[in-house]
Amino acid sequence: MERITFSSRPAIVMGSAGGGGLEGQGPLVEYFDILSADSRFERDTWEKGEAEMISRTTTALLKKARLKETDIDLVFAGDLTNQCTASSFGLKDKQIPYAGLYGACSTFVLGLGLSALTVDAGKAEHVMVVASSHFCTAERQYRFPLEYGCQRTPTAQTTVTACGAVILGKHENQLPYISEFMPGVIRDLGITDTNDMGAAMAPAACDTLVRYFSSGAASPEKFDAVFTGDLGQAGSRILADLLQKNGLYIPHLFDCGMTIYDLKKQNVHAGGSGAGCSASVFSGYILYQLNNDLMKNVLLVGTGALLSPTSAMQKESIPGVAHLVRIQKGD
Amino acid sequence: MERITFSSRPAIVMGSAGGGGLEGQGPLVEYFDILSADSRFERDTWEKGEAEMISRTTTALLKKARLKETDIDLVFAGDLTNQCTASSFGLKDKQIPYAGLYGACSTFVLGLGLSALTVDAGKAEHVMVVASSHFCTAERQYRFPLEYGCQRTPTAQTTVTACGAVILGKHENQLPYISEFMPGVIRDLGITDTNDMGAAMAPAACDTLVRYFSSGAASPEKFDAVFTGDLGQAGSRILADLLQKNGLYIPHLFDCGMTIYDLKKQNVHAGGSGAGCSASVFSGYILYQLNNDLMKNVLLVGTGALLSPTSAMQKESIPGVAHLVRIQKGD
Repeated sequence: MERITFSSRPAIVMGSAGGGGLEGQGPLVEYFDILSADSRFERDTWEKGEAEMISRTTTALLKKARLKETDIDLVFAGDLTNQCTASSFGLKDKQIPYAGLYGACSTFVLGLGLSALTVDAGKAEHVMVVASSHFCTAERQYRFPLEYGCQRTPTAQTTVTACGAVILGKHENQLPYISEFMPGVIRDLGITDTNDMGAAMAPAACDTLVRYFSSGAASPEKFDAVFTGDLGQAGSRILADLLQKNGLYIPHLFDCGMTIYDLKKQNVHAGGSGAGCSASVFSGYILYQLNNDLMKNVLLVGTGALLSPTSAMQKESIPGVAHLVRIQKGD
Repeated sequence: MERITFSSRPAIVMGSAGGGGLEGQGPLVEYFDILSADSRFERDTWEKGEAEMISRTTTALLKKARLKETDIDLVFAGDLTNQCTASSFGLKDKQIPYAGLYGACSTFVLGLGLSALTVDAGKAEHVMVVASSHFCTAERQYRFPLEYGCQRTPTAQTTVTACGAVILGKHENQLPYISEFMPGVIRDLGITDTNDMGAAMAPAACDTLVRYFSSGAASPEKFDAVFTGDLGQAGSRILADLLQKNGLYIPHLFDCGMTIYDLKKQNVHAGGSGAGCSASVFSGYILYQLNNDLMKNVLLVGTGALLSPTSAMQKESIPGVAHLVRIQKGD
């Protein structure tokens, strides 16, 4: 698919971010609306806790935006739990038509692109996008029971406990807007180490960025920032190498997985990951930069590893995908 | 969200259906393009077999439509396996931008709606929609190892081994087209019996149908057929009751889960279910009816149960969702 452009400038009306204890100790603490040191969010299981985090974050979002549930025409939502139940249970009490997505950690950007398409086409007044992840639900689902206290490899990333949510609506001056969307093609270079997701996702990120900048888009130096989702330290190094091999230099390249935590002070190995990572960093920190004119031209490249514990056990490699949106402020 | 209408009449260019052994013994055998009595589709695990089924069905679809992978701008795909790996592995070798969906058994209709929106908005020439399910991958993931030979309750449905795929494109005379889309709102009436998914999904189907027919849509008797996705025998009875309570009479109401099998002759309990059920019945049988003017005005209501084994074990109820599209031929 060619780069999709949205001429009507679908606006990001409001954003809200929720997080857990570790996120509240990180450098982005001030950009979270909801923080809970209790990883169960006062519910009795981690899974119910993740749903509760989604519920609280989206309730806070509606309040900030001064909109009612019934003002929202559609919600795109997804997470990492099997059958995406964090999203379905987290949103089931809100009377909003529900479109479930699965893009692993690329879910939020896929949702941004599809919601911009829906608003731009004039088919909805307001569309919500939500993505979340939770360290404890992910760790026991993908890896080992937390009680084992397994040691992790240096390339392993820390699944963030976080939820990001935004509402899109019609263009308004002074609001940032989504101007472009490029959905990703699945790339699989044969990586099989499930403790090195960054390596599995970096080729997909490179592919999408190369396709984007070859499509007649603005040149890399025009962007105040290009954020990848959650390649972490190891994956970001690989992406830098791959971009160099492709002759593409991006001066302001960042990774949400390395932004959400302080990698020197916090024990998070190669950085953050999870569908809630780019979602919360965008809905909190990046949106603040845009709303306050500290950034005016940003790319967000959501990166997802499309594996499951079953596919890994059956010795399949790890396919990656990377979706891209461009967010602008002003002309 | 109000009922979305597509004035450009995004066309269903072609469809293809793949299935397994039981589906090949059923009444719709002649509408399948691909059938394999080997439930592993000549691969070494059921999961790889499901991916293989998707790969073969979509390859057959491209051939029938005389289109290349590069002619397809975007694919919406989803299934029931954890992290939707059947779809990602089944489609990873095709160079098509990939948007993953999760709507349980409602996935295909959600995909139809979003692809119609994309084509109608002029953002894509061709969009593919794919959904699948597999009896063996689902049974061992959701219930018990098949080797146990567990006895099932009469309300239990049989997850179909099937894949349905269509390509949407710009309007052409003589092709059926998607004229309306109404995404579903999650409904949860507190059903907790995971052997009675029909009961959990029926309220969502009723809700969507009532909202649709209250929205100024054509009246129920104008439709040659209204197909629900996979309520099965038990769920369909409940839907009939609920519709009656709501004063809504739909003369030609069918269920894909009861169409795909012969409930008297095949040992399928309450009928078929799974994301591949409505997908394959639509892409094969219903599309044939439309293409041959045997039906000209059809509603397809995809029904999904948004639970997981984990949510069920944590004693959560089963939320349901139902998405609707209207498919027409001629004026």
